[in-house]
Order: sequence, then structure tokens, then C-alpha cells
Amino acid sequence: MPRIHNFSAGPCTLPVEVLETARDQMLDYEGTGMSIIEMSHRSKPVQAVRDEAVQRMKHLLDLPDNFHVLFLGGGATLQFGMIPLNLLNKDRTADYTHSGAWAKKAIADAKGLGNVNVVFDGSAADFMTLPDPSTVKSSTDATYLHLTSNETIGGVQWKDFPACDAPIVADMSSDFLSRPFDVSRFGLVYAGAQKNIGPAGLAVVIIRDDLLEKCNDGLPGYLSYGGHVAGDSMLNTPPVFQLYMVNLVLKWLEGKGGLAWAQDMAAKRSGLLYDTINKHNAFYRCPVDAKFRSTMNVVFRLPSEDLEAQFVKEADAAGLSGLKGHRSVGGCRASIYNSMPMEGVEALAGFMTDFAGKHG
Amino acid sequence: MPRIHNFSAGPCTLPVEVLETARDQMLDYEGTGMSIIEMSHRSKPVQAVRDEAVQRMKHLLDLPDNFHVLFLGGGATLQFGMIPLNLLNKDRTADYTHSGAWAKKAIADAKGLGNVNVVFDGSAADFMTLPDPSTVKSSTDATYLHLTSNETIGGVQWKDFPACDAPIVADMSSDFLSRPFDVSRFGLVYAGAQKNIGPAGLAVVIIRDDLLEKCNDGLPGYLSYGGHVAGDSMLNTPPVFQLYMVNLVLKWLEGKGGLAWAQDMAAKRSGLLYDTINKHNAFYRCPVDAKFRSTMNVVFRLPSEDLEAQFVKEADAAGLSGLKGHRSVGGCRASIYNSMPMEGVEALAGFMTDFAGKHG
Repeated sequence: MPRIHNFSAGPCTLPVEVLETARDQMLDYEGTGMSIIEMSHRSKPVQAVRDEAVQRMKHLLDLPDNFHVLFLGGGATLQFGMIPLNLLNKDRTADYTHSGAWAKKAIADAKGLGNVNVVFDGSAADFMTLPDPSTVKSSTDATYLHLTSNETIGGVQWKDFPACDAPIVADMSSDFLSRPFDVSRFGLVYAGAQKNIGPAGLAVVIIRDDLLEKCNDGLPGYLSYGGHVAGDSMLNTPPVFQLYMVNLVLKWLEGKGGLAWAQDMAAKRSGLLYDTINKHNAFYRCPVDAKFRSTMNVVFRLPSEDLEAQFVKEADAAGLSGLKGHRSVGGCRASIYNSMPMEGVEALAGFMTDFAGKHG
Repeated sequence: MPRIHNFSAGPCTLPVEVLETARDQMLDYEGTGMSIIEMSHRSKPVQAVRDEAVQRMKHLLDLPDNFHVLFLGGGATLQFGMIPLNLLNKDRTADYTHSGAWAKKAIADAKGLGNVNVVFDGSAADFMTLPDPSTVKSSTDATYLHLTSNETIGGVQWKDFPACDAPIVADMSSDFLSRPFDVSRFGLVYAGAQKNIGPAGLAVVIIRDDLLEKCNDGLPGYLSYGGHVAGDSMLNTPPVFQLYMVNLVLKWLEGKGGLAWAQDMAAKRSGLLYDTINKHNAFYRCPVDAKFRSTMNVVFRLPSEDLEAQFVKEADAAGLSGLKGHRSVGGCRASIYNSMPMEGVEALAGFMTDFAGKHG
């Protein structure tokens, strides 16, 4: 079976070169006579992988020294809880922006642990738009302001970030490493790995010293950011396979040209799809406010749900997989992360044009 | 490089057949044209892997229907916190047995979240022994009694379990699936994957209905057992690679003969090493009470620390890796989990005999 083009929202396609390396090293990592996943996490090779991944991340993001990079098991969903467990309490307040399905989960966890102000609520607009960042201010007593940089289900994406007084805490799960950003506005950035970073089962957390110092004491060991920083992401046995794969993906991204390359490619991939939708706007329709359309998740509708089902089915038969929209909103969605080759997007654009010609 | 014999305490050696399957399927899972780690966790192949792994686990353990099998990211260390977060509060009490380094971590997390009775404390005996299980009773008001079935660092292992009134909550990380056990005494069993189950980055949690019903409300989503049960281990994106590997390891274990085979092999492997120590008891010494010596982690001392260092170094050069004792206790340790072939143990026993002959 040849490799097919995989437009899943995540887990999603990974660079072929990375998969080939994982395959070739599966029984013998660099002449050690064992797999990297069979080695003690205290061994030199595993520690070197962790150190390399941290250094690559710092370099790609141009991180100042007052930020710490953590790789943690449990995914971004655990972070929805860990953030307020560490940073909120009954005497503290956080601002949250409600931009869609993922923001909603983050808000739900925070509400049980402290005072939450929802400073933007997109529900009345069905989460098809976002606020002008310059209008978003934090409350005077906010410990942080939380936002979701990209909503995979709605297909909306912050193009710039608020310049608010409170440090921003951002769930960047679905567009992390797809563009440069000014990290100095952020106190904590987190992302599940399974979009642009590697396989599912790991979250990257980047935390600034001043937020680290504000963390609550007395938490269970695994739930304390301080413990993970002190343990250099090896407070406990980490998900070694994911660490290894993340390091390979970051190396691959460096070779491609880093975040500038990622941003340029994201614009090209998403541009081609949005252009195709516009060109056939009697057939395809993107419901998202043009100012906030995601470069990662292109959502679109066809004239009927029957045609959408047929589109997904025929695309799948043509080697274009994973185009069904999220079950909560329906429609179609093409997720086009860093690892999606341009040929995949061109094949999809061609298929869309043909399909519109036949059924439009 | 030929495969070497890896005696690491965990992550540890995996079945060669499992690694070969992972290698062969890395770019194309069963003709789908993509890797299993690139697929949506809502896809049929990934759901089938989860379902198979759950069924195999139920079958291997002969689990009654009132138990739920969960596969969760974060490892056993997260469970140290999740258990008291779910089952304790300021009005509830739990009994804990303090058998060594791992029990200590579990106790530390519980103490912050409820009332903890330490019903056995092995610290005075340097954790080299355990209590007679028939003497271990639970407190009248205990929600559960916690024990650590095997301590990887000390090398002590419960050979039978208390018949106490409270349900037992057991950390079986390092000897899970190495022997049959009467699950009816247990309310919750958990284990990090990286010994007998698969690669690091996943914990299996087996929870009984009555304990599930006692779980506290209002926890962050990821930290609630109820949420994970409702989501069939897919409340969030799980560590798909580990799920896949666990399923392969369980299939391999079934093929070998299940827990009866595992128990027999564990007795043979550990028996050969303890016999070798006894045969050369002027040179090797096992500090652990003979009644509680682990079948998974054989710890032993040599006449001096210099000889221990030389032993570890020469063994490594002979293709016998990972024999250094834990940094907190020193000495030597051979970890011999299900995947360790008998040839590896025979090679080690031969090396030990030769080394004692040369230096004894």
C-alpha cells in the first residue's frame, strides 16, 4: 500500500523521514543493541534525547533563559487541570477567552479551582470568529489570561495576541511550531504533541520563572510544575518514545527552515484550499470569519450533508483521508499541519475542483 | 550490533517479536497507507486496538464484569495522586503500607489529601522485609488499604496479599502480569507499563464499581476516574503508540501461556540467580529477607563497592547491560521481567560464577 494523504485533525500525518528513522532504529538504537524504548530513562542515550529536544525547542522558539521547557505525559487535557491547580485558588482570579470546544474544556477545569472571568465568549457567533486582540484586556487582579491559539473544530485562529497586563497562558496544541510568536507576552504555553510535534501521549509545557514562583504548594508530585522543572522532565519515567519522536520531528523542522518555513508553508497550504473554496463559492462555503481562518484546520461546507458524505467517501477512495468534520459540527475539514506535503494539498484542491465540477 | 541482554529495572527489554512488528508496521499499518500513530484515535483501527487490549487484559486476569480496565497517560506516578484525589478527602481515611521507595511516594501524595494510617513501616529494617500478610488488618474506617506489590529498588515482593476488610489498592507496576492473583480482594490495581506491559508512557488502571462510585466529584476532567471510564480510555487523545504496543505484548503473552507461564518463568529466572548467589555466598550476598525476595528484581551485593563497579563494567562489556543497583541503595540488581529470555539469565548466572571464581 502506498502512503496516502492523511488530513486527520490529530493524531495526524508525521514526516516520512521521521517514521523511517523510527523503523530503522526500532531494534537497535545507534549500535547499542537495544531499542531506545527499552532503555532506562536515566541512561545516557535517553538523557541526550531529552536534552537535544529541549535545546531544539529553545532554539526554534528563541526562548529567553527565564523559560523552562517540559515534556509531560497526559496530553493537553491534563494541562487544563494542572494550570489552575498550580496557579489558581479561591483567592485568585484568571481570565479565560471562550473560543470554542477546547477553550470550553479549559474553562470547565478552572472554574472548579478558582475565580474565572470569561472575557470573551464566542458562543453567540457559533465560535466562527474571535475578538480583535487589541480590544482584549485582562482584569486588574488576573493571575493570567488564557486563550486557545487555534480551535481545531471551529477552524478559528488568533492571528495576533492581546497585549494585556496579565501574562498569557495559551493552549497552542493545534498550531504550535507553525509560526513564530513573541513569547515575551506569555507566562505559560502548552501543546499536545499530536499535531505539529510528534505522536500523541505527550504535552510540551513552556513556563516562565515568575509563573513558576506563583505555583501552589502541596500538590501531588506529578501535578506540580515545580517538581517537573526540578526533575528536568524526568520526575518520573517519561513517555520515552514520544520524546524520541519529538526530537526527530524538531530536527526535521530545523532542517526545513524552522518556524519561518512552517509559517510560509502554512500560508501556502491553507491559501490554496481557501482559494479553491472561494473559486467555487457556489458549491463550497467556509463558515469562518475571514479574518480568523485557521492555517491549520480548513473547515468547509458543501450544499448538502449528503454531498458532504459523498465527498468524504470519494476523497477517501482517492487516497485523501480524514476529511470528515468533527462529529459535533459536521461538514468537512482538512487539517494541514507542518508534516503535510504540498502535493497532498494540491491533490485535495484538484479533487475539490473536480468534485464541484461534477456536482455543482 | 547484535541484541544485548538488558537487565534494566524499567524501561526494560521488550519481546523481540513485538519490536519487529512495530518496525514492520511503522509506515503502513495493515494496508491503511499510514502508521497507527498517525491515525485519529476515533478511527476504527485505533478503537479496535484499544478494544483488543482491554479484552486481552480482562481475559488474562480473569476479571469479573464489575471491573473496568483503563489505559491512561501519565504513568503510575500520576496515579499516586489520582487515587487520593478520587478516593480521599478530609473526612476519609486510607491505610498505607510503607515497603520502600515507591510506597513512600504514594504515601506522600495521599497525606496531602486525606487521613493516612501507615499500618506497616519497613524503614527500621531498611525495607528488606515485609509483614506476614495474615497480620495486616485494615482500620475500621479505611476507604482502602494501599500496598506496593513489588519494590524494584529494595527487591522485596508480597507473595500473598492481606485478607483485610477494606478493598486493597495496589501499585503493581513492577510485577503486574507476572503471576495470577485473586482480584476479588482488590478495589483498584494500577501499573506503569514499562516493566511487563509495554513502553513507558502509559499506566493500566483496573477499578471496581464500588470504588468508582465512591470517587469525589468536581475534579479536573483528566483526573476523574469516572470520566475515563465513561470515555473508554479515550476521554482525551491517548498515547496511541503505547496502546498499540501493549496490545502486541498482551498478544505475545497469551501465545506464551498467559500468567501461569509468566509465573513459572519468573520462578525459573529468579531461582537461577538466587541459587547462583547462594552457591557463591562467600562472594555474593542478597540482603533481602528470603521469604520476600522478588522474582522481578534480584538485588545483590559483592564484597566491596569497587568489585561491584568492576562487575557492572565487565558484565556490560560482555553484553549484560543495566546491572547497576539503584543510585539510592548501590550494589547490583538484575531486573528480569516477562520479556527477559532464559538465555539472558543463564548468561548472567555464568558470568556471576566466573566473576566469583576470579575475584572470590
